[in-house]
Amino acid sequence: MITPWKEIQREQVFKKYSRTIMRVDFRMPDGSISDFYIKNEKPAVATVALTSDNEIILVEQFRPGPQKIFLELPGGYVNDNEPALESAKRELLEETGYTGDFEQVTTCFDDAYSTMVRTVVIARNCSKINDQALEQHEYADVHLVSIDEFRNILRSGKMTDVEVGYLGLDYLNLL
Amino acid sequence: MITPWKEIQREQVFKKYSRTIMRVDFRMPDGSISDFYIKNEKPAVATVALTSDNEIILVEQFRPGPQKIFLELPGGYVNDNEPALESAKRELLEETGYTGDFEQVTTCFDDAYSTMVRTVVIARNCSKINDQALEQHEYADVHLVSIDEFRNILRSGKMTDVEVGYLGLDYLNLL
Repeated sequence: MITPWKEIQREQVFKKYSRTIMRVDFRMPDGSISDFYIKNEKPAVATVALTSDNEIILVEQFRPGPQKIFLELPGGYVNDNEPALESAKRELLEETGYTGDFEQVTTCFDDAYSTMVRTVVIARNCSKINDQALEQHEYADVHLVSIDEFRNILRSGKMTDVEVGYLGLDYLNLL
Repeated sequence: MITPWKEIQREQVFKKYSRTIMRVDFRMPDGSISDFYIKNEKPAVATVALTSDNEIILVEQFRPGPQKIFLELPGGYVNDNEPALESAKRELLEETGYTGDFEQVTTCFDDAYSTMVRTVVIARNCSKINDQALEQHEYADVHLVSIDEFRNILRSGKMTDVEVGYLGLDYLNLL
């Protein structure tokens, strides 16, 4: 039987901008104490957004971890005290100028060694109401792709939120 | 038009066990130079493994980032000079005692700020040939679940490799 490990203590061991590493000591099921270096990451949100023509709204961006250009789902971090659905609306509007009818699908977890919780959102009937309003160091070109093209992008794995793409399509009965 | 950023220099700024952070300076499209704190993470692999009775093999584990117990896909890190398909076989055997017929589906990327590349693998016709051989601090109970139950777990988001689950089922024409 699997039991939760008991946290004994935690300490911040690295921080620069939003990149934070915590040393967390756990008492293990065998009674020993072990140190783990956990990524302390803020909650995030990503949206599968459909236009009224049933096209998916994606943003082409350079990603500095993989060092690749991907067609990504609109999204970003949830601000303090901001409901995740509001973050999804704000990010879609900033990154693409579009808005629509938003619905929360579920939350998911990125990584066994990260605190990251990602809220999965879908938006229907999206239309363009504004220009993009990108943050500093944000470069994003908007693309509209068909559901078939989107499915092929998911299958290729060339996107950092593939799970959100599938969860959104599954919720929309589009798989 | 989106262009790749040009890497100017990089420097390791945190390392403990396998947790490594690199400061990477990029020349941005506007000509300025910016520092990013990138997670330098080893390649990993995860497997959607089906028994000959079409049940999915999962491992119940405590995950120290989310601090939750999840039913997870078998998998782990790819060792140096090890083909990812071999890592998948090794991890499935160690974590569950099962083996079968392995096939690589694709690779995917976890995070815009991580180097992590995850190889997605499926295994068919799996059967138990050994006892588990867990590493230190690995506690994992084996569960067999139906494809419908697995689909419900994916939809719940309560797993850290949801994208691998969907990509595996999609490849197997089980969505």
